[in-house]
Amino acid sequence: MVKQIEGGVTAPKGFKAACCAAGIKYVGRTDMAMVFSEKPCVSAGTFTSNVVKAACVQWDKKLVDSGEALHAVVVNSGIANACTGQEGWDACDATAVAASEALNIPAGSVAVASTGVIGMQLPVDKLTAGVKTMSTTLSDSLQAGTDASKAIMTTDTINKEIAVTFELEGKTVTLGGMSKGSGMIHPNMCTMLGFLTTDLAIEKSLLQEALSAVILDTFNMITVDGDTSTNDTLLIMANGEAGNVVIAEHGPAYDLFYEALFTVCRYLARRMAGDGEGATKLFEAKVVNASSKEDARTLSRAIVGSNLSKAAIYGCDANFGRFLCAMGYSGAQFDQNDVELFFESAAGRLQVFDHGTPLAFDEDLAVKILQAPEVTVFVDMHEGSEEAVAWGCDLTYDYVKINADYRS
Amino acid sequence: MVKQIEGGVTAPKGFKAACCAAGIKYVGRTDMAMVFSEKPCVSAGTFTSNVVKAACVQWDKKLVDSGEALHAVVVNSGIANACTGQEGWDACDATAVAASEALNIPAGSVAVASTGVIGMQLPVDKLTAGVKTMSTTLSDSLQAGTDASKAIMTTDTINKEIAVTFELEGKTVTLGGMSKGSGMIHPNMCTMLGFLTTDLAIEKSLLQEALSAVILDTFNMITVDGDTSTNDTLLIMANGEAGNVVIAEHGPAYDLFYEALFTVCRYLARRMAGDGEGATKLFEAKVVNASSKEDARTLSRAIVGSNLSKAAIYGCDANFGRFLCAMGYSGAQFDQNDVELFFESAAGRLQVFDHGTPLAFDEDLAVKILQAPEVTVFVDMHEGSEEAVAWGCDLTYDYVKINADYRS
Repeated sequence: MVKQIEGGVTAPKGFKAACCAAGIKYVGRTDMAMVFSEKPCVSAGTFTSNVVKAACVQWDKKLVDSGEALHAVVVNSGIANACTGQEGWDACDATAVAASEALNIPAGSVAVASTGVIGMQLPVDKLTAGVKTMSTTLSDSLQAGTDASKAIMTTDTINKEIAVTFELEGKTVTLGGMSKGSGMIHPNMCTMLGFLTTDLAIEKSLLQEALSAVILDTFNMITVDGDTSTNDTLLIMANGEAGNVVIAEHGPAYDLFYEALFTVCRYLARRMAGDGEGATKLFEAKVVNASSKEDARTLSRAIVGSNLSKAAIYGCDANFGRFLCAMGYSGAQFDQNDVELFFESAAGRLQVFDHGTPLAFDEDLAVKILQAPEVTVFVDMHEGSEEAVAWGCDLTYDYVKINADYRS
Repeated sequence: MVKQIEGGVTAPKGFKAACCAAGIKYVGRTDMAMVFSEKPCVSAGTFTSNVVKAACVQWDKKLVDSGEALHAVVVNSGIANACTGQEGWDACDATAVAASEALNIPAGSVAVASTGVIGMQLPVDKLTAGVKTMSTTLSDSLQAGTDASKAIMTTDTINKEIAVTFELEGKTVTLGGMSKGSGMIHPNMCTMLGFLTTDLAIEKSLLQEALSAVILDTFNMITVDGDTSTNDTLLIMANGEAGNVVIAEHGPAYDLFYEALFTVCRYLARRMAGDGEGATKLFEAKVVNASSKEDARTLSRAIVGSNLSKAAIYGCDANFGRFLCAMGYSGAQFDQNDVELFFESAAGRLQVFDHGTPLAFDEDLAVKILQAPEVTVFVDMHEGSEEAVAWGCDLTYDYVKINADYRS
């Protein structure tokens, strides 16, 4: 059984974190974070599918692919280190070298990640000074994990962290994570910065397999604005300190870990969607009885991805035609005469479309349902047995405000 | 030589138009339009690729495919007649029958089109009464064409019409058109209501070939919000009254008509993009030296389609990383180290990105360029010789305002 506990990346045994205000771009707040395990970690990662990859994404991808042990991740917010040419790569290298010297670990065991403005160079002096500072303040306290999760925020309004435990052969295994992401969020591979830590002992290939599978129904199912970032990175570090027998094959132990990983990623993904730039509510689409899993995912993502749907959710307008329209251009094939569509929230449930025909419905109840902080569009396709859930947020004046002047 | 003249759908010989206030949904404005040619017309059309097709789209597609002559188009604004089941189809039929009786033409020669709220039934009595009224007020005056182009507007703030002429074998051929579209606009097949009239004599298959080719670089290259409508329809009627020898094969006459058609469609498409819901400016992306035509189209469409790019254009923020990011997730493959990116407008031209490296640039000049009413992002891919242009608009508070409460 997977159980949620307090904390984030420092909840698992042997993981420390730190953060600092390095003055990279923001004033009066922390903007660098570090996660560290003295014991070498097996790692896995998923990265943006954007052709324009940030320097740090290229750095981490190379590192994870190399199979070398991972000891530390250094993250900065404010500047994305994307579209920065050779100078951007050199900044990654300088960061890793600084961490290597300060922590007495190989430079090749240091992952780096950045988030913020694209097309601006990182101030390398401030970056390496920050690394040195953090190396002296690393702590395994839960607070250190929480502080790290705050330092990596950009336009996020809340930090995102979670930790869960489960029992394996009488040993307690812990899995913790933090993520950030509010704008430039759209499902494709994974869409954010996310860092997961676990004291589980597991083989690298199985760790990667679990991570790659879990994101399909978690991070890949969220969207804020349809823009797939240049920097999306999800890393997991497993240091084996729980003392379980190394998971080397599929079976009950793998399944239990998979469930824990799913719980953590789903939680972080939902938190990111609900904290989308300018959002006032979490907007969920659940599609059931689709003819294939891929169709279910495509349809639910199209619903939460449509600007018109998002604006209707913001305005509490039960304009269900927009959801059907989005499903129609999603790429999935279906017959509108099979479809039923409902609005759901804590305030109630209301059917508005029944097998091709619009229903007369109670507008007051519709508004009440749509005013809730978490709103679901539930669609029964009646064409198969597959289902999927996608998460987004409403489109508001504040989204435009934030993004009409983000850089300066 | 193709020459622009005054007028719209009534500019070509033998075409009449009318409109009326049928009271379908709007109050105090016209909401129905009719275009009529006593002489039977060869027709061609392109329709939405959305799986959820409005009843009228299915009606018109059947009509155009049948090869029967076309005499009239009846359009209403306010209600889209989409997601309306059998009752929606019956409304199309009743409209065509009413026009057939009033104009003494076959019901199978009447196209119908609707635009407005999805999932609401049309009031058939008002619709057929409107048809009767318009049948008695048809006029070939230019004003009648203009009035028709106003009656089909929904959230549009300006009407869109144009007419051009060219000489063929000593005969003057005229081509006119009108279109509407402001929200739920995204290139896929064609994305709007558009009605073109011409007195050219041409074979049906060539008319369809020209129309299908021209939309690829005109209507299919615009986007307002990424939402491909359920109702997109572009129809052309050719009645042959110019008296030219019927165009039956490729050659100089076809090429001249093609140029005229391109001019008309490009004009209407640009007008629609610049009048996107809530827009304050026209946002153009020109991509040159791409490795394929399809890549050039994909890249330019991604730039004008990105919410983040659109918000930056609204805020006059030269945040060029967002444009590169959008190119990166577009699906086109390229190397960022080949790319140059410029901002252009009547106020000047400014390079901001050079072969993978961001350039220091004059921020004041950038703001000046981006404040113009028509702004271009110019991208040189340096990977081939193909180019494309796409048009969109900025993302503003007003877009959210309009769409948070459009239905009620």
